[in-house]
Amino acid sequence: MATLTDIGLAAAINILSAVAFLIAFAVLRLQPINDRVYFPKWYLKGVRGSPTRSGTFVHKFVNLNLRSYLRFLEWMPAALRMPEPELIDHAGLDSAVYLRIYLIGLKLFVPMAILSFAILVPVNWTNSGTLENSKVEYSDIDKLSISNIPSGSQRFWAHLVVAYAFTFWTCYVLLKEYEIVASMRLHFLASEKRRPDQFTVLVRNVPPDPDESVSELVEHFFLVNHRDHYLTHQVVCNANKLAKLVKTKKQMQNWHDYYQLKYDRDPSKRPTRKTGFLGLCGDEVDAIEFYTSKIDELSEKEATEREMIKNNSKSIMPAAFVSFRTRWGAAVCAQTQQTQNPTLWLTEWAPEPRDVYWQNLAIPFVSLTVRRLIVAVAVFFLTFFFMIPIAFVQSLANIEGIEKVVPFLKPIIEEKTIKAFIQGFLPGIALKIFLILLPTILMLMSKFEGFTSLSVLQRRSASKYYLFILVNVFLGSIITGTAFQQLNSFIHQSATEIPKTIGVSIPQKATFFITYVMVDGWAGIAGEILRLKPLIIYHLKNFFLVKTEKDREEAMDPGSIDFASSEPQIQLYFLLGLVYAVVTPFLLPFIIIFFALAYAVFRHQIINVYNQEYESGAAFWPDVHGRIITALIISQLLLLGLLSTKHAANSTPLLLVLPVLTISFHRFCKNRYEPAFVKYPLQEAMMKDTLEHATEPNLDLRAYLLNAYVHPLFKDEDDDDSFSGGGEQEYETKLVPTKRQSQKNTPVPSKYNGSSSPSLPEIVKEQL
Amino acid sequence: MATLTDIGLAAAINILSAVAFLIAFAVLRLQPINDRVYFPKWYLKGVRGSPTRSGTFVHKFVNLNLRSYLRFLEWMPAALRMPEPELIDHAGLDSAVYLRIYLIGLKLFVPMAILSFAILVPVNWTNSGTLENSKVEYSDIDKLSISNIPSGSQRFWAHLVVAYAFTFWTCYVLLKEYEIVASMRLHFLASEKRRPDQFTVLVRNVPPDPDESVSELVEHFFLVNHRDHYLTHQVVCNANKLAKLVKTKKQMQNWHDYYQLKYDRDPSKRPTRKTGFLGLCGDEVDAIEFYTSKIDELSEKEATEREMIKNNSKSIMPAAFVSFRTRWGAAVCAQTQQTQNPTLWLTEWAPEPRDVYWQNLAIPFVSLTVRRLIVAVAVFFLTFFFMIPIAFVQSLANIEGIEKVVPFLKPIIEEKTIKAFIQGFLPGIALKIFLILLPTILMLMSKFEGFTSLSVLQRRSASKYYLFILVNVFLGSIITGTAFQQLNSFIHQSATEIPKTIGVSIPQKATFFITYVMVDGWAGIAGEILRLKPLIIYHLKNFFLVKTEKDREEAMDPGSIDFASSEPQIQLYFLLGLVYAVVTPFLLPFIIIFFALAYAVFRHQIINVYNQEYESGAAFWPDVHGRIITALIISQLLLLGLLSTKHAANSTPLLLVLPVLTISFHRFCKNRYEPAFVKYPLQEAMMKDTLEHATEPNLDLRAYLLNAYVHPLFKDEDDDDSFSGGGEQEYETKLVPTKRQSQKNTPVPSKYNGSSSPSLPEIVKEQL
Repeated sequence: MATLTDIGLAAAINILSAVAFLIAFAVLRLQPINDRVYFPKWYLKGVRGSPTRSGTFVHKFVNLNLRSYLRFLEWMPAALRMPEPELIDHAGLDSAVYLRIYLIGLKLFVPMAILSFAILVPVNWTNSGTLENSKVEYSDIDKLSISNIPSGSQRFWAHLVVAYAFTFWTCYVLLKEYEIVASMRLHFLASEKRRPDQFTVLVRNVPPDPDESVSELVEHFFLVNHRDHYLTHQVVCNANKLAKLVKTKKQMQNWHDYYQLKYDRDPSKRPTRKTGFLGLCGDEVDAIEFYTSKIDELSEKEATEREMIKNNSKSIMPAAFVSFRTRWGAAVCAQTQQTQNPTLWLTEWAPEPRDVYWQNLAIPFVSLTVRRLIVAVAVFFLTFFFMIPIAFVQSLANIEGIEKVVPFLKPIIEEKTIKAFIQGFLPGIALKIFLILLPTILMLMSKFEGFTSLSVLQRRSASKYYLFILVNVFLGSIITGTAFQQLNSFIHQSATEIPKTIGVSIPQKATFFITYVMVDGWAGIAGEILRLKPLIIYHLKNFFLVKTEKDREEAMDPGSIDFASSEPQIQLYFLLGLVYAVVTPFLLPFIIIFFALAYAVFRHQIINVYNQEYESGAAFWPDVHGRIITALIISQLLLLGLLSTKHAANSTPLLLVLPVLTISFHRFCKNRYEPAFVKYPLQEAMMKDTLEHATEPNLDLRAYLLNAYVHPLFKDEDDDDSFSGGGEQEYETKLVPTKRQSQKNTPVPSKYNGSSSPSLPEIVKEQL
Repeated sequence: MATLTDIGLAAAINILSAVAFLIAFAVLRLQPINDRVYFPKWYLKGVRGSPTRSGTFVHKFVNLNLRSYLRFLEWMPAALRMPEPELIDHAGLDSAVYLRIYLIGLKLFVPMAILSFAILVPVNWTNSGTLENSKVEYSDIDKLSISNIPSGSQRFWAHLVVAYAFTFWTCYVLLKEYEIVASMRLHFLASEKRRPDQFTVLVRNVPPDPDESVSELVEHFFLVNHRDHYLTHQVVCNANKLAKLVKTKKQMQNWHDYYQLKYDRDPSKRPTRKTGFLGLCGDEVDAIEFYTSKIDELSEKEATEREMIKNNSKSIMPAAFVSFRTRWGAAVCAQTQQTQNPTLWLTEWAPEPRDVYWQNLAIPFVSLTVRRLIVAVAVFFLTFFFMIPIAFVQSLANIEGIEKVVPFLKPIIEEKTIKAFIQGFLPGIALKIFLILLPTILMLMSKFEGFTSLSVLQRRSASKYYLFILVNVFLGSIITGTAFQQLNSFIHQSATEIPKTIGVSIPQKATFFITYVMVDGWAGIAGEILRLKPLIIYHLKNFFLVKTEKDREEAMDPGSIDFASSEPQIQLYFLLGLVYAVVTPFLLPFIIIFFALAYAVFRHQIINVYNQEYESGAAFWPDVHGRIITALIISQLLLLGLLSTKHAANSTPLLLVLPVLTISFHRFCKNRYEPAFVKYPLQEAMMKDTLEHATEPNLDLRAYLLNAYVHPLFKDEDDDDSFSGGGEQEYETKLVPTKRQSQKNTPVPSKYNGSSSPSLPEIVKEQL
């Protein structure tokens, strides 16, 4: 078991590596050449242009101002300086509220740490004689933890009282936070400009009618049943095939550009490629011509597909976006049942246009139950049995297996160092690959479940991922053995035994989790700010593909907060903090450092880097709240189990009260605040309608809404003749007002023969 | 353990007692004197009058037509003859659908019994050698049950296949039934006449406003937010105190009538009573004068209270019934959220006026969570610890305890027979009293939870009672020991052990449950039709209080289906049937007889006796469905436990599939059919609105709705000047059209000095 010195050493190493990351970041971000990697948000907003400042040639790529390197942490105060309302304006409510999750971490754990160190640490430390006398190995940390108290001691009352204090404090913070976020959301929705989704409802499962097309049917239905409010509608087309074609065409275009650029640089030799599989075999042909013909072919296919979708009634899905004259009318339609059969004419709020997940719009209602059942079973098996396929792959991926498949590699593999490497490394790789792929797998599952907006998909994936982390990281680290073995032993244990089994192991694992927090938390967050992968990809793209300023804009990958995978990871820290707050308070400072660092880093990223894909108005908050409550209840149950093994038995009924109180607190919050995230109050809608009617009596709403919910692939086409003009882009500027128009839309003089971009590769070549 | 002969004997006894009840009923119902006890429904509907047919004097009280006694079961075909649509017309949808629960019992268990006796009984019976060889006592019934199959036998596959067949059959029947009931409900709602609750929404938690009264506030809010639809509203007054006064006055009136009647019969002696506690001590006064003065006093108090409620703003509760111009408007308002704060301006469908539970209308939202938590905890303790207070009472209520409290009774108690009686009887009485009071206690708890309509209160009580029966009757009979001991042992057992523990005991308890079904089911149902309690009370009232025809009308107690206590009892039979269908099919015929008998009896009662208090449109069906599903899942788990102890281990995964399938079936049903019971589709509303507008363009809806939701105590007062005229009574006739007007409303010539009623007591005296 680790001593304080060990932990100190580990902390030092991790702090050093984190600092190394931060310094690397500080250096890299100051280089103008990396500007688009570290400040893409500002480019997208049009505030920042390509570095064309005056100065020497080299200045454009390398920052030689040494003084700026000295202030290598200056981004931190800068990131913290932007006030919250401006942040909401700048990056949207989702991002601003996401940051509050880290803030909650600080709000929860800083007072907890103070209280613990003031009360529990002295109580634990001053108790002498238990650990010293026992033959069990112990460390200094254990002297600070509850392990140092002997069974049946009266000192456990201190822990009991502190557990109560922590529960009330957590509930208080959560309540306040729910209140703030709910009011932020309501304020955000209220102060929003006109948005198409305020007027629009998504109607699914329009029943088939032999006499009328879907479009006519929808129109007639709503003209009858919402006659004072119905305005217009937009049927949904099945454009999945077209989307595939467009994607392929874009890939071909990229290859074409690549070869074209290659040829331009070295006109003496025309680039060639082979026609076969992956360009590895087959006849050799001229690459540029090959891709040109491919692109032409695809363009033709695309055109016919477009025609087909427009004219063929089979590609019309039984779903439509129905828009209303007033927000009131839309709010009414979204919240009510339309027909006797509750599986037909399903209405729900339309997600905002960017948020729509178009592929899932046509899934029939009946199949949804089956799909959800399948996914539920799949998630269960994935969580508890994921080791089985991996073990299978691992058993294949050993030396003998490889030698059998590729015998000609035998001499190489038999080499001693390589053999050792394979044996040590290969089994781990299978697991690592699985863990990297996991969020993608979970997202695919969520998509299969049939949700129609990206925000909901992310939330559902996050729930699944949380379950996985809870079972496999948290429980898996405490109790050895695979999740399946745990499950098996839990089933065969009584309900009161389970918290005991886990609770007893909790204090022993404190050092492990401290290391985990440092490695995964600290270093991970510091790595996040470095953006190594986007940095490399950007420079590769820049080198091979970029010809124009527009290409460079596309090569930029600002990314966005990946709620589906990052939120469950934060939740793990909440869980660790709450579980160890009473048991081993020594863990708290490490978690506090994590939350503080993460808050600063993500605030910086949100301000400077991320470009949010959609805006759900913090609709994820009930999930976040619910998971912290779950963590709180788990911590209470584990403490109960731990104390009951310590023969502090008369504390059991007192501790049992805590989860009951917590659950009823949760129910109260659910009743009080959750509707703000699900429903849209009519008073609100009526107020905005009245206001709008007074200020803009001549507004042509029909024209405004006409193309809002056209499939993105058709939107580009319609751009020229549609009212809504710039489509998505124009829409976005409406959402977040900027001081300048985006460069993407303003005609930029081609700088192809100018100073900056084309010469970039040469610079890089020189450096190689 | 009972043999087949024992069971046959018990069955014979129970059949005989049931037949005795039925014969008693057949005799009593034919006496004209009992007409109002056995056919009150027809009196209420005005189809039947008091027996004033020509004939001798005696004929009016005793039926001397001997031929009619021969056909003593003729009521059964008569009860079954009325077709369902007419039944709905006659007694409302609630009653008609309630009968379908018994029908489901038949639909489920008749085919199950046939299949079981065709497959399982031979499979069990032909297996020889297990029970004979074992030293355990066994009975003939065990030879028919699964107990006769040795561990590890391949014959369990038959049980497995049959379990699958039963699950699918149950789900199929439930699905069909849900479909039928949902469409019945929708058809009922659609074909309904105009009803006030179609246009009305109950608004609760109107926020306080310093400048405006509640009434003004409501009006302004809805004029703004539902301006095209708002029509009128009715604020709710706190009339609980007034209700109490009115109730006391009525009691006093009853006593006054009693003494008056006594005096009239024997004018020589003026009746007196004492003024003290319960009329047992204090000064002796003239009884008639005493009660006259009491009544005058109360009338005065009542009048001032009425004035106070009308003029004092403090008696106005922050709730109102808001009526809309159209059903569409009401449907919209009931289904949407009104303001940002989801705890203010809560809207829900108004229950129909008869269904409103007025006392609960003013409970603030915040206290609801607390109230529900308290009740949840209370139900938990009531269910699992109810034996503790009863044991305490029992320990007091023994011989020594009584001798201590009332020493002068000692000589009597010490008598041998009396002592034996007390010792044998008293402990049981405490339990019996508790069980009789239980539904009342549960109803009080539900009222405390704050639901606002009688139908919801009944449904909630039913849920609680079901839990109690499940734990204390079903589990309590299978596993000996109190519920608390069971709970304790379950907590200390593993999750897989619990079904095993219970499952193993299941076959052994078959004979017990067969007896239970006969005693509780058969005899209970036969007792139900006899209506002994209403019969006695009616004749007592008739003797002591009745002066006029109107009094007699009031003395009649038709009663109604007590959903809160009778439905959970039926559910116990479903549970028994499903659990034993595979294990001991021999139990099924007994359950089938119960369902058949109960169906006939309740159909008769519903047609001839019960007068429904309210009409909820079969809103209870989702609960019924859910509880049958619960029973199905319990049966599957117990079979799983039983088979796993029988070492038919490879059947476990196959059996585990069943509950998963059942749960997802339940979720499908919930999605597909439950909205029909909760929401009101807009299309439906719009259709009815349009139709009504076309047929009655000049309808004065405001006048129609004006007094619909006045508190019943104020309604009587308003009767003379209000538009709605006959109030509740007129409303009722609107609901269920009858061929004649109710006698209550048509002026009946007083028959005081006539032939029938006043001479009744003399007849009875003669018979004594």
